[in-house]
Amino acid sequence: MLLKQAISCLCRNNLYKNPLLKNYSLIATVLKSQLGETAEVKGWVKNLRVQKEHIFADVYDGSSAEKLQIIIPKALKTDTLTYGSSVNITGKITKSPRGQLELTAEDVKVIGQCIVMDGYPFNPRTAHPPEYVRQFLHLRSRTNYISAMLRVRHSITKHIHDYFYERNYTHIHTPILTSNDCEGAGEVFKVEPDNEETIKAMMQEGKNRETVYFGKKTYLTVSGQLHLEAICRGMGNVYTLGPTFRAENSRSRLHLSEFYMLEAELAFCDTLEKLKLTIEDLLKYIFIETRNTNEADLFLLDKNNKAPKWLDKNFVTVTYEEAKNLLQKKGKNASEDGLNKDEELALVEICQGVPVFVVEWPKNLKSFYMKESTSNSSMVDALDLLTPITGEMVGGSLREDDYMKLKHKLPSDSLNWYLDLRKFGNIPTGGFGLGLERLMQVVCSVSNIKDTLPFPRWPHNCDM
Amino acid sequence: MLLKQAISCLCRNNLYKNPLLKNYSLIATVLKSQLGETAEVKGWVKNLRVQKEHIFADVYDGSSAEKLQIIIPKALKTDTLTYGSSVNITGKITKSPRGQLELTAEDVKVIGQCIVMDGYPFNPRTAHPPEYVRQFLHLRSRTNYISAMLRVRHSITKHIHDYFYERNYTHIHTPILTSNDCEGAGEVFKVEPDNEETIKAMMQEGKNRETVYFGKKTYLTVSGQLHLEAICRGMGNVYTLGPTFRAENSRSRLHLSEFYMLEAELAFCDTLEKLKLTIEDLLKYIFIETRNTNEADLFLLDKNNKAPKWLDKNFVTVTYEEAKNLLQKKGKNASEDGLNKDEELALVEICQGVPVFVVEWPKNLKSFYMKESTSNSSMVDALDLLTPITGEMVGGSLREDDYMKLKHKLPSDSLNWYLDLRKFGNIPTGGFGLGLERLMQVVCSVSNIKDTLPFPRWPHNCDM
Repeated sequence: MLLKQAISCLCRNNLYKNPLLKNYSLIATVLKSQLGETAEVKGWVKNLRVQKEHIFADVYDGSSAEKLQIIIPKALKTDTLTYGSSVNITGKITKSPRGQLELTAEDVKVIGQCIVMDGYPFNPRTAHPPEYVRQFLHLRSRTNYISAMLRVRHSITKHIHDYFYERNYTHIHTPILTSNDCEGAGEVFKVEPDNEETIKAMMQEGKNRETVYFGKKTYLTVSGQLHLEAICRGMGNVYTLGPTFRAENSRSRLHLSEFYMLEAELAFCDTLEKLKLTIEDLLKYIFIETRNTNEADLFLLDKNNKAPKWLDKNFVTVTYEEAKNLLQKKGKNASEDGLNKDEELALVEICQGVPVFVVEWPKNLKSFYMKESTSNSSMVDALDLLTPITGEMVGGSLREDDYMKLKHKLPSDSLNWYLDLRKFGNIPTGGFGLGLERLMQVVCSVSNIKDTLPFPRWPHNCDM
Repeated sequence: MLLKQAISCLCRNNLYKNPLLKNYSLIATVLKSQLGETAEVKGWVKNLRVQKEHIFADVYDGSSAEKLQIIIPKALKTDTLTYGSSVNITGKITKSPRGQLELTAEDVKVIGQCIVMDGYPFNPRTAHPPEYVRQFLHLRSRTNYISAMLRVRHSITKHIHDYFYERNYTHIHTPILTSNDCEGAGEVFKVEPDNEETIKAMMQEGKNRETVYFGKKTYLTVSGQLHLEAICRGMGNVYTLGPTFRAENSRSRLHLSEFYMLEAELAFCDTLEKLKLTIEDLLKYIFIETRNTNEADLFLLDKNNKAPKWLDKNFVTVTYEEAKNLLQKKGKNASEDGLNKDEELALVEICQGVPVFVVEWPKNLKSFYMKESTSNSSMVDALDLLTPITGEMVGGSLREDDYMKLKHKLPSDSLNWYLDLRKFGNIPTGGFGLGLERLMQVVCSVSNIKDTLPFPRWPHNCDM
């Protein structure tokens, strides 16, 4: 123990904060520094204004939504110091007449020049439309809009991990490759090795291209839920946050072929109430923490984006039947099979923009693993959470824990392992899935989901 | 601002710690409680010893490597209270004659029974061999070995995120689906929609099954590095931690078809020294923090597992040529093209078990994106880090930042976007990739990589 502490101490002092690893300052840090200090920054010039004796350069390095204004004496100007170039500038921290910290340059080096005429797609002080920017995925992190969005995404990811860590959930890496074939409603991607020699070398009797590598047909996951349920039945509360896939032919502002899902499974959970409270708690936590960590980014993304008025209200709960009645009263010709996007958004509007849990769903509208209600066997203990902008953001349920009922509903023999979970020391569980990009849309007020992640994939689009 | 604080305060007090969400105690918490307190626990019985007046039950709930011993008066015993059953027990915290905290039961409920004869694969107090346990992926989180391993994996993941968060790296979700076809050395998986109707509906002239959905052939990623490099050139330091894929026909104890990679890209990085320091710092941080958070788990996984002796030493550095000479002196007939696994492990042994950086690699042995050394144009500024148990654990390099040199080495026109990054305000960067499962092997002393993650995938194996 003493040795361990000694090592820990040694490493913390000598290595963890090695000065070699910190040879320049982030702009986020400089903007909080003291007047008169010397700082070295590295970043990109996003605007240049030439005045009589000085040049004013706005420099960003990705660490902050705010620019660092740098005052460059004309003597230090070179031809390569242009809009878009990368620079290394040392100077003294001074204050602008408006009271903002800025840097008065003493040394200016251009690291990489940027010849805009060679095809650089962005112009200074221009708000390019997102559809235009999206054509240049490889360069778009250079725009203030996308870099702000990526910082928010980074923070939300961290807040999610913190939330579950503080509550003793175990983070489980559920698999991307799966042989489950019954969850994607037919809209799955299949996976095979690409190499002909590998296929030849592995070929066996009774196998074909689709089954040769893994011995069975293999797909990209549409959900980690069933895997989480297996781990939950030995480890207690668990969650996963990772990519999932749908091979839909949909190009809406709400759909992607590859998207992130947060999924949690709660051990010993036997009421929908507990699930609802957890989801509401989690969402409020994320919204509040993200406003605290990324205020400037949220302002950059949408000047009118304010803390939602529902943060200090309780979420609304209505049954599926009540939801249908409310919609009918507003003249919405209700569809028979669930709620469509229009109806979802109308329902949120009826509830004055407060998120709405829709509960008590007809069994035939929901998945096989959802628990039959004890009070009404034609219903399941499921919930959808509807929010402004995206409609459905979370789906969840208690899980069927009756062995015989589950056996009758099981869609495929390949899921016998899932049935098995109910056989040996079973426990009641419930869980939910939350679409990270839809959450991003609501937090950031982004209407198109393709701008909430760095490399969007949708039909006909898989650049890079 | 005041409103925000008020909301934050309200939520923190009323909702975040809602008592409804905390209706039982984790065993990890009970084991640190005060004598005489009342506690309710929920978990699984892993051992039962019947004595004269009492039954002793060892209960686990996944929160700790340590069991909670429960003393059950015989009057509370029911037929369903058996090995493997799930239970809900309330009682008072008492102390065993040996001084350990235990629970004296006042109420015992069996939640789910476990009829071992119905096919439950595990026996009490038995260390089943890992190959046997691996056949029951869906139930193996119920074994102490696998649950300890999953807790360590959870902690290592958290330590990695903390490490980069504290150092202002942005966490980037690089894509799983990619149209890059030139990085996997031919060992990639390809991806297509499975549904015939989707394919028919989307078919266009000039397309086939492989290109119909995304417009080009699409693969599972083998590395997020090139994507990270794009984001790094707008946001500074970045990292990613997620699944990557290899369609190799290899069933070794070191290979998986789906595995996690930590990849980091360092902005403005122009020396290999900086990269080496970062890797060494990160690894020591993870080892030390994991010993602090998971001591009991590490002990459970391997009683002889001690803090490695290299924790307070500097890592060794040798050039590729020096490595070959050292191996030759030890009578190893050195192979011509790189280091094989035997040679890697022998080199670590020569260095007395201290991790070794191998640097100065011949250009023809390494990837196109690695930077040509300024001192010798037949070499690249690359490194491999070799460790005990696994050999290569990390690979890294400075990236070629000379536009013309990169243009000549570019393996495919589809990577013109990557070349483009060097054109507009380019910066020097360097980065590395670390295999999470190999790290797990070294931290936990696990010889087979298949036991370091919850759902291993390898040739002929993709269960669940």
